Amino acid sequence: MPSTPSCAESGPRARDLGLACGRLKPGPRNAITDVPGVRVGHATLDDGAIQTGVTAILPHAGNLYRDKPVAAAEVLNGFGKSVGLMQVEELGALETPILLTNTLSVGTAATALVRHAIAANPDIGRTTATVNPVVMECNDGPLNDIQALAVTEGHAAAALAHALAAPDGAPIAVGSVGAGRGMSGFGFKGGIGSASRRLKLDGTRFHLGVLVLANFGRAGDLRLPDGRRVGPPPQDAEPEKGSVIVIAATDVPLDHRQLRRVIRRAGVGLARVGSFWGHGSGDIALGFTTANRLDHDARADILPLRVLNEKRIDALFEAMADATQEAVLDALAAATPVVGHEGATRPCLSTLLSAIP
Amino acid sequence: MPSTPSCAESGPRARDLGLACGRLKPGPRNAITDVPGVRVGHATLDDGAIQTGVTAILPHAGNLYRDKPVAAAEVLNGFGKSVGLMQVEELGALETPILLTNTLSVGTAATALVRHAIAANPDIGRTTATVNPVVMECNDGPLNDIQALAVTEGHAAAALAHALAAPDGAPIAVGSVGAGRGMSGFGFKGGIGSASRRLKLDGTRFHLGVLVLANFGRAGDLRLPDGRRVGPPPQDAEPEKGSVIVIAATDVPLDHRQLRRVIRRAGVGLARVGSFWGHGSGDIALGFTTANRLDHDARADILPLRVLNEKRIDALFEAMADATQEAVLDALAAATPVVGHEGATRPCLSTLLSAIP
Amino acid sequence: MPSTPSCAESGPRARDLGLACGRLKPGPRNAITDVPGVRVGHATLDDGAIQTGVTAILPHAGNLYRDKPVAAAEVLNGFGKSVGLMQVEELGALETPILLTNTLSVGTAATALVRHAIAANPDIGRTTATVNPVVMECNDGPLNDIQALAVTEGHAAAALAHALAAPDGAPIAVGSVGAGRGMSGFGFKGGIGSASRRLKLDGTRFHLGVLVLANFGRAGDLRLPDGRRVGPPPQDAEPEKGSVIVIAATDVPLDHRQLRRVIRRAGVGLARVGSFWGHGSGDIALGFTTANRLDHDARADILPLRVLNEKRIDALFEAMADATQEAVLDALAAATPVVGHEGATRPCLSTLLSAIP
Amino acid sequence: MPSTPSCAESGPRARDLGLACGRLKPGPRNAITDVPGVRVGHATLDDGAIQTGVTAILPHAGNLYRDKPVAAAEVLNGFGKSVGLMQVEELGALETPILLTNTLSVGTAATALVRHAIAANPDIGRTTATVNPVVMECNDGPLNDIQALAVTEGHAAAALAHALAAPDGAPIAVGSVGAGRGMSGFGFKGGIGSASRRLKLDGTRFHLGVLVLANFGRAGDLRLPDGRRVGPPPQDAEPEKGSVIVIAATDVPLDHRQLRRVIRRAGVGLARVGSFWGHGSGDIALGFTTANRLDHDARADILPLRVLNEKRIDALFEAMADATQEAVLDALAAATPVVGHEGATRPCLSTLLSAIP
Repeated sequence: MPSTPSCAESGPRARDLGLACGRLKPGPRNAITDVPGVRVGHATLDDGAIQTGVTAILPHAGNLYRDKPVAAAEVLNGFGKSVGLMQVEELGALETPILLTNTLSVGTAATALVRHAIAANPDIGRTTATVNPVVMECNDGPLNDIQALAVTEGHAAAALAHALAAPDGAPIAVGSVGAGRGMSGFGFKGGIGSASRRLKLDGTRFHLGVLVLANFGRAGDLRLPDGRRVGPPPQDAEPEKGSVIVIAATDVPLDHRQLRRVIRRAGVGLARVGSFWGHGSGDIALGFTTANRLDHDARADILPLRVLNEKRIDALFEAMADATQEAVLDALAAATPVVGHEGATRPCLSTLLSAIP
Repeated sequence: MPSTPSCAESGPRARDLGLACGRLKPGPRNAITDVPGVRVGHATLDDGAIQTGVTAILPHAGNLYRDKPVAAAEVLNGFGKSVGLMQVEELGALETPILLTNTLSVGTAATALVRHAIAANPDIGRTTATVNPVVMECNDGPLNDIQALAVTEGHAAAALAHALAAPDGAPIAVGSVGAGRGMSGFGFKGGIGSASRRLKLDGTRFHLGVLVLANFGRAGDLRLPDGRRVGPPPQDAEPEKGSVIVIAATDVPLDHRQLRRVIRRAGVGLARVGSFWGHGSGDIALGFTTANRLDHDARADILPLRVLNEKRIDALFEAMADATQEAVLDALAAATPVVGHEGATRPCLSTLLSAIP
Repeated sequence: MPSTPSCAESGPRARDLGLACGRLKPGPRNAITDVPGVRVGHATLDDGAIQTGVTAILPHAGNLYRDKPVAAAEVLNGFGKSVGLMQVEELGALETPILLTNTLSVGTAATALVRHAIAANPDIGRTTATVNPVVMECNDGPLNDIQALAVTEGHAAAALAHALAAPDGAPIAVGSVGAGRGMSGFGFKGGIGSASRRLKLDGTRFHLGVLVLANFGRAGDLRLPDGRRVGPPPQDAEPEKGSVIVIAATDVPLDHRQLRRVIRRAGVGLARVGSFWGHGSGDIALGFTTANRLDHDARADILPLRVLNEKRIDALFEAMADATQEAVLDALAAATPVVGHEGATRPCLSTLLSAIP
Repeated sequence: MPSTPSCAESGPRARDLGLACGRLKPGPRNAITDVPGVRVGHATLDDGAIQTGVTAILPHAGNLYRDKPVAAAEVLNGFGKSVGLMQVEELGALETPILLTNTLSVGTAATALVRHAIAANPDIGRTTATVNPVVMECNDGPLNDIQALAVTEGHAAAALAHALAAPDGAPIAVGSVGAGRGMSGFGFKGGIGSASRRLKLDGTRFHLGVLVLANFGRAGDLRLPDGRRVGPPPQDAEPEKGSVIVIAATDVPLDHRQLRRVIRRAGVGLARVGSFWGHGSGDIALGFTTANRLDHDARADILPLRVLNEKRIDALFEAMADATQEAVLDALAAATPVVGHEGATRPCLSTLLSAIP
């Protein structure tokens, strides 16, 4: 049985360690769930050499196939195995939850999403189109016995159920949970992290939230917001390994093109923490807006959409860069110790920073 | 002085020669000007070895810098020198008229557009941004002495003025006019061609119109709508030369992503007339919709837009493929004889087809 | 048990029905296996409502993870669920066989490729990187009970074994076999088709071969090489459904950019048979060259590659367009009758053409 | 008459102010000219309100149209008017020098490159193809009277001549010179900057060099390598304006795909100095390698190329990120005071940093 962790199991948040980024204010939970409707769930596998899991992100709690949020994907470095991005880019919409898991379990998670979609929409592949599952991944190889292919469709279903059971706007578990269980970054224990920023447009409050699966960065390259480098000096011979997945949610109305411009700034946040988007790192961003949705069964030929006055988009660019940067630090801050495959382990950033007076 | 040709100077239209394409109905002029507001003007240089010109397409007769139509560009084969497409793709909008001319005159035409925009918008480069001129081109080398760089800023201004002087919905001159003056295609005289298709959405009539600058296709590869190949057999050693520019206009409300999907189908129309998008041919499409415009001076942060229910987009795909195919045939049909650089000339398709009983 | 069909079970080839395309000569088998080293295998599921399967394409019979062919992908219309293309585009190489199957079985086929790769390369995810499975798909929904998710990892393994067992240069089964079992196109029974073209470069003979999984095209839109349209008139209300996957192989040395330019011309071939790359059709091309391979374990920092003199690339463009066109016709020609889910069936093109005197 | 500045006119280099970036060693001049064969020239206009110019970068001193370096372009943010990038991406090669100038002078500079190419290659547009001029730009509006369109073809020719006159490996003038004359960044005087890094591959020394035209960054956002922010606090209302052009040169053999991956890391360097690739900023990178050249007149069909073992590419990624970061700081460091249009001026970073004990 996978566990579905509560927030209590997370370590400290990035801000608890003094690692706030940028000048914009975060939302109440400083998490992707500050965007109304968004839900997150995890299924964590913690059994000796099996240290892995699944994380589910739901743009809303309804039927995503019927009510598709506008979405976009941006590939910063495509050394990765995420699935579903091609159709997101062609049609500008998401029609399933997003699942995060380890690299070799992508196929299983995709099949789980197919079954999940068919269960709610029995017309799929019969009287309507098929369905485009979106699964993104990092390689948790060093801590997890990734060759075991331990993630099952049941684990994916558990993460989805966990997300659906969460109330709207709930705080989320971060750190060594869900897909983040076996991840590493910058020589430290990695995992799931999150952050959000508040925006005011036309006198109304909006949010942009980010969730990352952080498994990237050379040891010694980590840079804190004040400019300090922490960790051992980088080794010439050691490549930047791993990957990082950046999921962005917002309730600002954007079209596909605008959304893609916004999530591209994930690359800025990653650069600020010390990455140069290394060769072996699948650095990929996916974003959606809950403010523009496409009705699968719409009958009208012409439909209304709302978009951002592009002159205001710098606020979203800044929010995206800052929230990505902080979400990565959050993943490292909140990560609790894991002993995995062949006894492998990674030091925790929180331990290091706590030791500095 | 360049001449600004009237329709009377065109040869027959494609339909006059029996070359209708597809099953959708054309608009009243079967031309890009069937899209309300769109205007076209030409300046033609016809002086011995100088057989070239400029064609201007205006999405509307107002200030394009202040009132920018949503636009998109698609590069089928990027062996070309068009300018302005990068910003069109980033911002999804057009902010100047589109000029077509010969390859080596692109710089001059771009400068003319800059001056044209500054004249109407003295804040450009002072208190507001600069301006993105869009100029597209083909190489009229064989018939025109292209090294002479004969096109001046004055010729560009004359084409713009000619377009502005046209009443809304006017028929347009096609064939060996404007930028089409020295063009060739499939071994025949090429030039400017146009076509349009009607669409009904939510009970209202809409249009999609295409204008091409046709200067592509190997001799012998031309294919008529009934499947006949006309012209001499293709020579193994002779590459597909030249280029083709496809401009699409519509009053169907689309966002940038949808528009890009639509204009990509220019490639279908080009394939149907016998092209395989040859190496040396810059095959490029640019589209705009008059139904979604971005106000340069908008004050609100969130703005309304209308989009197409994507399930209806096949109608636009079909219209785009058919109108591109017919516009190319129209360019060949309407082209009148030109004797140019070193006495070079090309046979006219209308002559050949008229000779067939 | 899936069957692994022999050529004897195919219907007539396109050329048997007089449907040759273009002026270039085909290779000895007029199939993708005319490119030395390429192998194809099928596993076919034929059991009542289950009419589906898997087709495997192997660029060579060795360890693809160790010896990666240069590859490229081109998305003509991204309404599809293929996996693995992102990394192919980033790294320009293929590291597993290509599997084709139905849309909802992509996850299962991907997992099968992961296990296949690990079996031959136990260092995957341990001391070297993970692996990028490439699976492409069409929706065989109308004839196959796609919701049954009937394809297993065992079926994928059977298709791979069938491919490996084939001698180099073997003829291949086409039509209603493997992944093509339940496919439809242009109102006819669709499936697997293939074609090849010969090229001469620097006095040496080379080949370009294409294999398609054809499941696209509106009824009535099919166009034969002589210009005839066959099939019932298109219905206004009926969208172009289905998808088409185009796999191209060549032994001409190309780099990633050149290969991508070549396979883009798949779109020309699809347009010639009557498609406008409909909205609902995932039209996707993947190509590889056996002449440039990347050694996973190379120790030198600088490596030699051979590329095509780009001035000769039109020969490959023409071959790609012609072979794609003919491979689609081949799929329709060779398709044998299938009675599937709820008794659904499609007429065979060969029956129709045989009836025309 | 424009002046063609010598190095003596530059202010201090970034390293003179303690602003070294990263752990890799620079080449002997810490400039793009550390890549053998590369030459740089400037023409500077300094006349009251006219504070602008042209900078020319030559990949080698020979005939670039005949001997084309492999090249690639990467658009980080496409709010810009650069020309020539489309063909660079299609064909993967450069065939003219690169000119940098102000936004509204791009057309003039393009025409100058056309004439320059024709002068050396009288077959252009006659018996061979046309030519693809590459011109990149920033808006020097605040300091220069950009509406004056003061740059002439003569100025472009002077910059080209200045570059050609430089000996191989010469130091270059940086700061308020050439196209950098009127540029601003982060609230400081901007301009031209450069940096290089050494690499060892297969026991041989290689270089990667960067030259930037820096005209971007919000006041207050500038970040020094030690993490300090310098300049006034950013104003909420003020957008990130301007643009930045990053030119990368290397003698490491790369193909187009690899080169594009390398220059994409310009975005990392820009993020490190404090930019989030603002909406209004055309952030564009262009790179070339002198180690792979395409002979315009090659007769063989198959040609040799050398590429990098991709497992070593992190060294180039790191060099690109570091050299871009330092080149931007170099532009600010070396910029000398300019009083321009309506008396506008910007403080110099060197003054500020010299005042800090």
